[in-house]
Amino acid sequence: MDRFDLFRKIQRDTGGKMALVVLDGLGGLPKTPRGKTELETAKAPNLDALAKESICGLHIPCARGITPGSGPAHLGLFGYDPFEYDIGRGVLEALGIDFKLKKGDLAIRVNFCTVDKKGRVTDRRAGRIETKLNRKLCRKLRQIKLKGVQLFVETVKEHRAAVVLRGPGLHRGLNDSDPQETGIPPLEVKASHPGARKAARLCNAFAAKAKAILKNDRPANMVLLRGIDRYELLPDFTQVFGPRAAAIASYPMYRGLGRLVGMQVLKTGETIEGEIETLRKNFDRSDFFFLHIKKTDSYGEDGNFAKKVQVIEHSDKLLPRIRKLGFDVIAVTGDHSTPAVMKVHSWHPVPTLLWSKVCRPDDVTKFGERACNHGGLGVFPAVDLIPMMLANAGWLQKYGA
Amino acid sequence: MDRFDLFRKIQRDTGGKMALVVLDGLGGLPKTPRGKTELETAKAPNLDALAKESICGLHIPCARGITPGSGPAHLGLFGYDPFEYDIGRGVLEALGIDFKLKKGDLAIRVNFCTVDKKGRVTDRRAGRIETKLNRKLCRKLRQIKLKGVQLFVETVKEHRAAVVLRGPGLHRGLNDSDPQETGIPPLEVKASHPGARKAARLCNAFAAKAKAILKNDRPANMVLLRGIDRYELLPDFTQVFGPRAAAIASYPMYRGLGRLVGMQVLKTGETIEGEIETLRKNFDRSDFFFLHIKKTDSYGEDGNFAKKVQVIEHSDKLLPRIRKLGFDVIAVTGDHSTPAVMKVHSWHPVPTLLWSKVCRPDDVTKFGERACNHGGLGVFPAVDLIPMMLANAGWLQKYGA
Repeated sequence: MDRFDLFRKIQRDTGGKMALVVLDGLGGLPKTPRGKTELETAKAPNLDALAKESICGLHIPCARGITPGSGPAHLGLFGYDPFEYDIGRGVLEALGIDFKLKKGDLAIRVNFCTVDKKGRVTDRRAGRIETKLNRKLCRKLRQIKLKGVQLFVETVKEHRAAVVLRGPGLHRGLNDSDPQETGIPPLEVKASHPGARKAARLCNAFAAKAKAILKNDRPANMVLLRGIDRYELLPDFTQVFGPRAAAIASYPMYRGLGRLVGMQVLKTGETIEGEIETLRKNFDRSDFFFLHIKKTDSYGEDGNFAKKVQVIEHSDKLLPRIRKLGFDVIAVTGDHSTPAVMKVHSWHPVPTLLWSKVCRPDDVTKFGERACNHGGLGVFPAVDLIPMMLANAGWLQKYGA
Repeated sequence: MDRFDLFRKIQRDTGGKMALVVLDGLGGLPKTPRGKTELETAKAPNLDALAKESICGLHIPCARGITPGSGPAHLGLFGYDPFEYDIGRGVLEALGIDFKLKKGDLAIRVNFCTVDKKGRVTDRRAGRIETKLNRKLCRKLRQIKLKGVQLFVETVKEHRAAVVLRGPGLHRGLNDSDPQETGIPPLEVKASHPGARKAARLCNAFAAKAKAILKNDRPANMVLLRGIDRYELLPDFTQVFGPRAAAIASYPMYRGLGRLVGMQVLKTGETIEGEIETLRKNFDRSDFFFLHIKKTDSYGEDGNFAKKVQVIEHSDKLLPRIRKLGFDVIAVTGDHSTPAVMKVHSWHPVPTLLWSKVCRPDDVTKFGERACNHGGLGVFPAVDLIPMMLANAGWLQKYGA
């Protein structure tokens, strides 16, 4: 039986309320072999107290040894096989700026970049131009006409924009034009199969016209196309699993990820306090809340061990505000690890606690990587977290008689 | 996405060096329920020190409860699904004596045996004849002519030989002629499907002609055909995963297993010291080294608990020679368990340590079965060891954005 068919068959509504709190890039590494990780270093009495009443473990985001991007890592947490649902960054970027993608749209993540007189890339991010300049450049690019398709050019942030082509017959299977290095020109976009040739042709036409329009601009005088993908709706979270679901995230990308699986995206502020306030206000309107905390990952990527610890400690202080709302299930985890000592996402399993009145607590009394190794959840695939949350919240019937 | 396609896509060369040290049949059992296993009994301060800085766990060679032969156990360790890549022993035997198999060859493992006047097997190994006699018998058998195929008859060791048929249309799907018991004649080789009938006919013809040629020899006067299989190249390790790979093994079978996945087989001596010297000399010429230590398994199969302990202790003494070469990743494990109290391969998960500067050490401070149960790797499929080694050595890019 197809995994999703199973959930469609056994879901039931008993009104249980669930919170999935994701501290992005939570998992870490010690600075020395016998030292402590970021999470182990953090003074987090509320998380520790919750861990004591929880069942703990570590999840594997995609597969052992595989370092996931934000997309696959979140899809896994939402219960979707990240290899089956392989979503291009272009789609995620467009969703993340609240662009209303339609089925069949071709979405492209665009970097404004700098090229020299011979067309060779000299800066893949055009010195990370200001968002204001980005807006101006996007307005210019909107004059481009492409035969047979509608074009949308939208500012994301700094040097990043999202471009969407809307029209018939735009298929996936295209490479990036971003050469990933400087000193050479942008690559031609090529179709990996005949069905994608139309999309490739249009992408190359867009890049050529953009080059002509931007030729006198500085420092951003060209575009690089990345993560080109066709938008296809994923199976709807509520239809597959049952609960009405809502996403609370300050950062566009994570709102986009929630929208991709059909979650209602709630308007929220820039702070964790603001996110929790959004949670409180909307508590009655959903059954499942995904609450995303970004800065653990940002500081991990900056290599700032101490600041990552601080974000964990700050989140810990706010945890009682979530607990007192009266959830039946609370899960706290990350989407992947971002050890400050590595400054990048990594493959390491991610500490996870799952609390409910019927979770069967284990011997773990502190929320941390080493402690979670001894937990009752073991080391488990991320896609299994949602089923366990549903079970603990009473949303799943018995399978078979 | 196909698993191997994923690795082909995300592999990158950052120059990280990896050593996979396999103590064959490492996993064991205590002699009494509360006693210690072979590995737990061994005084292995160097392995224990390495375990302290490593992440530990136990791998499942093929699947829970499945006892693997050397072939599937090693393929699993090399990252190949042992059920997808099901290799006959005949192929392994031929590869192990450096016989240059060609695609489509039919390879057969042959036992010289003793039959009585009525053709019934009285000794399946002809009293384990000396290798010298084996060579003489093989020379005799080379006079056999089989229509439409080329025949190769090669001595392996004692009573064992390898026979290869080369020609068109030789397909897999044949049973052994070895009846696995005495008192009955060798079995007829039968095709499990019509496509394999030609191969079956030729195998039976070879056995009949061998019987006629050997009828006056003693004690070896007949052959038993085993593990008949067609040689097909497996996906190349370097193409799939990235690193240049080399195999160091004193025993032919394990060199053959390395060759099967495209590893460069390095000439080495009979001792572990010799193997490590080969490793040292070739350190610059490969990225990944598979170093095989045989005698843990041999003593396990002999039921010699104390000698198996000694091989582990001896290997432990030599471990610093490997460490000081400057690997980025060292994994120490077995291909399967061979508990001395059982005298055979077994299904038990195999203690594994994985060391790197970014491995995220756990609480395990001693390398042993019970200790590894508490390790951060958990109990994991053997095929996941290579991806984790690659990740730790920096050979894998992020999946998705």
